[in-house]
Amino acid sequence: MRNICIYQEFLTDTHKQRIRETAESTGFIPHFFTLDQFEEARACLQDCEVLYAHDMNLLRAAPASLKWYCCSYAGVDPYCKDPGLFANPDCMLTNSNCYGVTIAEHVVMVLLMLLRRMPEYEETVRRRSWSNQLPIRSIRDNAFTILGLGNIGFHVAERLRGMGAAHITGLSRSGKAREPVYDEVLPISSLDEVLPRTKNLIMALPATAETYHILNRDRISLLPSDSCVVNVGRGTAIEQEPLIEALNSGRLAGAALDVMDPEPLPPDHPLWSARNLILTPHVSGNMTLGYTCDRNVDLFCEDLRNYAGGKPLNGLVDRTRGY
Amino acid sequence: MRNICIYQEFLTDTHKQRIRETAESTGFIPHFFTLDQFEEARACLQDCEVLYAHDMNLLRAAPASLKWYCCSYAGVDPYCKDPGLFANPDCMLTNSNCYGVTIAEHVVMVLLMLLRRMPEYEETVRRRSWSNQLPIRSIRDNAFTILGLGNIGFHVAERLRGMGAAHITGLSRSGKAREPVYDEVLPISSLDEVLPRTKNLIMALPATAETYHILNRDRISLLPSDSCVVNVGRGTAIEQEPLIEALNSGRLAGAALDVMDPEPLPPDHPLWSARNLILTPHVSGNMTLGYTCDRNVDLFCEDLRNYAGGKPLNGLVDRTRGY
Repeated sequence: MRNICIYQEFLTDTHKQRIRETAESTGFIPHFFTLDQFEEARACLQDCEVLYAHDMNLLRAAPASLKWYCCSYAGVDPYCKDPGLFANPDCMLTNSNCYGVTIAEHVVMVLLMLLRRMPEYEETVRRRSWSNQLPIRSIRDNAFTILGLGNIGFHVAERLRGMGAAHITGLSRSGKAREPVYDEVLPISSLDEVLPRTKNLIMALPATAETYHILNRDRISLLPSDSCVVNVGRGTAIEQEPLIEALNSGRLAGAALDVMDPEPLPPDHPLWSARNLILTPHVSGNMTLGYTCDRNVDLFCEDLRNYAGGKPLNGLVDRTRGY
Repeated sequence: MRNICIYQEFLTDTHKQRIRETAESTGFIPHFFTLDQFEEARACLQDCEVLYAHDMNLLRAAPASLKWYCCSYAGVDPYCKDPGLFANPDCMLTNSNCYGVTIAEHVVMVLLMLLRRMPEYEETVRRRSWSNQLPIRSIRDNAFTILGLGNIGFHVAERLRGMGAAHITGLSRSGKAREPVYDEVLPISSLDEVLPRTKNLIMALPATAETYHILNRDRISLLPSDSCVVNVGRGTAIEQEPLIEALNSGRLAGAALDVMDPEPLPPDHPLWSARNLILTPHVSGNMTLGYTCDRNVDLFCEDLRNYAGGKPLNGLVDRTRGY
């Protein structure tokens, strides 16, 4: 029999039932382990050809007969950096693009907070004072640049469109987008031309060699002084020191970072006290949203059917490219 | 000649030009005054049949020949309470329903902040600590009850719908809604039946005798313990003491108040320190948003054409009803 090792904490009985039914109909037996059953999972894994988890140590213990590792996270950069991680170099790696909805809601929230001057109003309220005449801006009739047009970029664009955004520019590696939700789609190589006309920059990029410090000091200086920056991809995409300088000097209107470098941020890091910065401790894509968990299981089951039928996997990651 | 007195601060040259053109084509002469020209405006007003302003003292100085007072605010409760305010008892009062977009963006922002536990995460970040496993919720697949189906209610519903809300219940005095954006529309008299199944309550009601403390102690106790309350109408609609008790005891998940009673809130008021409460100093509908100002002028010009043509005014307020 063909076995699947499943090492996850978030699965409900309904999720397990859905996985059992899909496995049965495709000729597999699923074996479920919670995160406190590492040893049991490792023992079982020796006879499995599929692993559904998000644990590098468990993957390291997998036999060369493992053919598919389905990672339940979206960011798989750590899995692409270490060539010795997979005993079978041809083992397929997939990630889970199920975080678009929850991350897009986070992006809409922090964009509105920046445009509506919430960091300043929250300070006013903390002082128990009353003033309400700061000029605010709106998503309606505003312009947005989205860097990274995967699942997150798509759901962000869809929501901005629904709220009356005037113009959405999308930038992707290929200069193409799967969904026709953007007003224009350009290759990332056009970034230097796009930044001077960017009012709101939303970054949703994976961590790769190419995206490391893609928003560097020079590019930060290309942004107009009333622009806002939101990052929900990976912290390494921004050169943080010049961003902090730009915020503290008022050279930028504001920023919202859910990801930073390093994480957790050390207590003495200057990001904690930067001006007009909304910091969140990497919460935008967390798994506590029911929809996200359901979608994670759906994506695994879809790809299990693809795998069993010898079809290409939807979530397949190019390990040399990093996403 | 027929004269219009305009006493406003926010008008740009473009706005004035639009008003001049509309006035000219309908047989009127507009006279513009800024807020530091009260005496000049009062003198001019004596020969005017239309006043476009938001100033009770100026209105009090108007002659009995004033036929239409166009108030650039949405909330006109102070104008309806004082019967001696209008020298001409038949003077028409209109309000400006141009605040729906900016207030709806505020509502989406604070709803996301409550559902995503931002008051708690902001406290985490203030302590420079790192934890990110609070269960969060989503607008997608969630249910909402909107109390008051005017311009604000409509724009809120439209945005929640666009973000994937599962169910939107609307309540209005008449039990009807102008726009077909709600899943169900009920009369406000059904409130006691709706509250026990309300996950998120959005209040956008005018201040009238009927809406005073409409969310009183008994009704607050009907809400489920995981529900959130947002008020962007008038502060008098909520009995604040039991709301504060419910928040501080964890009987309610959270609330966001942009309006309260009284305003400004005194420094020793218990609302300042209530748990999981997002307070803003009446900013949701402020006039600093370009779109809001444009729309305000558009609505005045539309109704000026109606007025000149002897047609009913779109913004007409029933002074006995209060909105």
